[in-house]
Amino acid sequence: MPTDGDTPRRRRSLDKGRMEAFSDGVFGFAATLLVANLALRPPGTALQQLFHAWPSYVAYYIISFLTIGAAWLAHTALTDRLAQADPIFLRLNLLLLLVVVFLPFPTRLLADTLHQTSSQRVFVTLYGLTLLAIRLMGAALAAYARREHLYSPHEDGGDLHSDQRKLLPVVIGYVIAILIGLALPELAVALYFGIAVYAIVPFREVARLLFRRS
Amino acid sequence: MPTDGDTPRRRRSLDKGRMEAFSDGVFGFAATLLVANLALRPPGTALQQLFHAWPSYVAYYIISFLTIGAAWLAHTALTDRLAQADPIFLRLNLLLLLVVVFLPFPTRLLADTLHQTSSQRVFVTLYGLTLLAIRLMGAALAAYARREHLYSPHEDGGDLHSDQRKLLPVVIGYVIAILIGLALPELAVALYFGIAVYAIVPFREVARLLFRRS
Amino acid sequence: MPTDGDTPRRRRSLDKGRMEAFSDGVFGFAATLLVANLALRPPGTALQQLFHAWPSYVAYYIISFLTIGAAWLAHTALTDRLAQADPIFLRLNLLLLLVVVFLPFPTRLLADTLHQTSSQRVFVTLYGLTLLAIRLMGAALAAYARREHLYSPHEDGGDLHSDQRKLLPVVIGYVIAILIGLALPELAVALYFGIAVYAIVPFREVARLLFRRS
Amino acid sequence: MPTDGDTPRRRRSLDKGRMEAFSDGVFGFAATLLVANLALRPPGTALQQLFHAWPSYVAYYIISFLTIGAAWLAHTALTDRLAQADPIFLRLNLLLLLVVVFLPFPTRLLADTLHQTSSQRVFVTLYGLTLLAIRLMGAALAAYARREHLYSPHEDGGDLHSDQRKLLPVVIGYVIAILIGLALPELAVALYFGIAVYAIVPFREVARLLFRRS
Repeated sequence: MPTDGDTPRRRRSLDKGRMEAFSDGVFGFAATLLVANLALRPPGTALQQLFHAWPSYVAYYIISFLTIGAAWLAHTALTDRLAQADPIFLRLNLLLLLVVVFLPFPTRLLADTLHQTSSQRVFVTLYGLTLLAIRLMGAALAAYARREHLYSPHEDGGDLHSDQRKLLPVVIGYVIAILIGLALPELAVALYFGIAVYAIVPFREVARLLFRRS
Repeated sequence: MPTDGDTPRRRRSLDKGRMEAFSDGVFGFAATLLVANLALRPPGTALQQLFHAWPSYVAYYIISFLTIGAAWLAHTALTDRLAQADPIFLRLNLLLLLVVVFLPFPTRLLADTLHQTSSQRVFVTLYGLTLLAIRLMGAALAAYARREHLYSPHEDGGDLHSDQRKLLPVVIGYVIAILIGLALPELAVALYFGIAVYAIVPFREVARLLFRRS
Repeated sequence: MPTDGDTPRRRRSLDKGRMEAFSDGVFGFAATLLVANLALRPPGTALQQLFHAWPSYVAYYIISFLTIGAAWLAHTALTDRLAQADPIFLRLNLLLLLVVVFLPFPTRLLADTLHQTSSQRVFVTLYGLTLLAIRLMGAALAAYARREHLYSPHEDGGDLHSDQRKLLPVVIGYVIAILIGLALPELAVALYFGIAVYAIVPFREVARLLFRRS
Repeated sequence: MPTDGDTPRRRRSLDKGRMEAFSDGVFGFAATLLVANLALRPPGTALQQLFHAWPSYVAYYIISFLTIGAAWLAHTALTDRLAQADPIFLRLNLLLLLVVVFLPFPTRLLADTLHQTSSQRVFVTLYGLTLLAIRLMGAALAAYARREHLYSPHEDGGDLHSDQRKLLPVVIGYVIAILIGLALPELAVALYFGIAVYAIVPFREVARLLFRRS
């Protein structure tokens, strides 16, 4: 029920519903595009091809899916607490989506050059930089919303803070993994995998579940 | 109308609206990707190519579409009765989507190796395992929601139970079909087709419709 | 505000919101997939290739897009008046989507075999049958909803009737065009184009607009 | 709470919710398809290929993404103020989506013929015409809504006017860039990039942010 006093404010702030719908679509597409690029390479029997391509599924497909999943979860937590979006927030959100949508490209490059260590060094670096950029853009979005007081007034920001609690370890982890990847690309991929799992697992809830059970 | 007593709980539980929107996008995209991979193989006239590729449309495209459709229907029935989602539920949901999104890959492998029985044995097995994994992840999601009391209080779970009633026959059917596929891949595909039809047809409603008419 | 009397009915009927969201996703994907398949053929300069491929854009891409658009419009008009969806309606809806999602495949086949009249005869027929199947499945969905009294009670069905008014001419048009396509594929494509334009243009509203202006 | 007087009007006007959902899906999908087409060309090391392909990412991918993003933002602002959609508005909206969905095709053509100036002249022109068509279709949609009084009565149109304020400079910019592209394709791409940035940056809000900070 918009009152006269409410209307001018509503006009300046923008509807967040469509931003969420558009973002959900883009996150979902980017996640699905990952598998559109999966392919087997000719030499060998079907079974040999599958085992040969195995790392590409496990490592790249799953890391990328988990990273997009974690970015989507963080985005959900952020916009859920948002009272309003302003024009700059909407553009920053588009920049986040620009990086998310880019992820299938380095993922495919890596999967295509499996077992070619010279190219892999370059592509693993590009891949790590993209993963890092997704995380940083998400953090920038949250920082802008906090700075511009876009959150609902009755949100104390406690949960949001907990959502962003893993930010520093994750960013440091990516920087270390990217540097290691310049020399040892396969170790970097293992680290990316570890970071993706660390970023998405809700340790507190899992612990609560485990302790309650015992 | 959130009361003071309601707000802290709402904060811990998470909005299910965006989970549904994201899931709908991923289910829909995975279903559409299936056809993006359809192709005809060169030798022969257009008509011969179409008839040659016929089993790939009927069997793989339709089985995969029906399986994604059935998973989406089960997901709808589940989240419709959900009072709230918790952080672990959201991650389990992402795992379900991870497997759903993977399905176009073995579907394409199978369609690409039509009439090559040596590769087909491997890919039919991979295909069956993916179909089984989708069903099991959906059941795990429902089991978690029941165990953690995430359903609305005024839902007695009767309908949900009926949604899950076909779980055991379907799982047993998949296990048998996968084992048969190691020797007779084409029989396994026929069984997958039968299971997909069995899983999606609402026999009780169809019976009601038919008896009422006569 | 669900009352005790309302709850059992709500439980048997299913939420139509997610069916709409899922359908919107699938319609949108199928429409976008059409352009993913557009490509130029090598011989000639860039300009020659563009002009050579011109019919493929106009005819196939636009016919397919308009057909999906018309199917989506009819779907919107139908579910907008729906009071509830039942399990069978949801499955019929999936069958409609199955055919819609299939459309990019014959579209691509046609565009790929441009100027090869022998293959085109076959693919034009397949294309016309798919267009007809989309229309018939949409009509079956509307007929089922009417027969099972799924519409809102205060809807007299007048508008719906007007949505379905073009059904018979369109179906007859498709049948004639498909038969003609067996001998003259290019004439059939021109007819498909005409039918798509006829099906989507709201003549009454356009007339009202034109007469009011003069 | 629809009253008797409201029902007949509601029946003639159509629900805008599903138009938004369908449009969001198509916008999001078109934005994601852009990256599905990114690829590296064989000669050289991985690093050389990446640097060689660099302009295709920066120029084409980012210009296209920003253009789709700006079109989506304008669409959001438009439908947000819409009280109702009529049948012709829904069809014009489909035409806008038809052009948006087409954009990945000229984007891919340009990226594929990178460094081949003879083809590029043709494709840069096609690309510019598509960008212009997206903008003009968006403006046509807004003009139709204004002319037919589809906006909410308490919207004075002030904000919408500001959304359309950049229309004339953008259209003139495109026409100049397209003409320049006939002789100097690479300069045209630089201009397209400038126009895309100009069209999407909210200068007033950015200025407010900067002045407040100092």
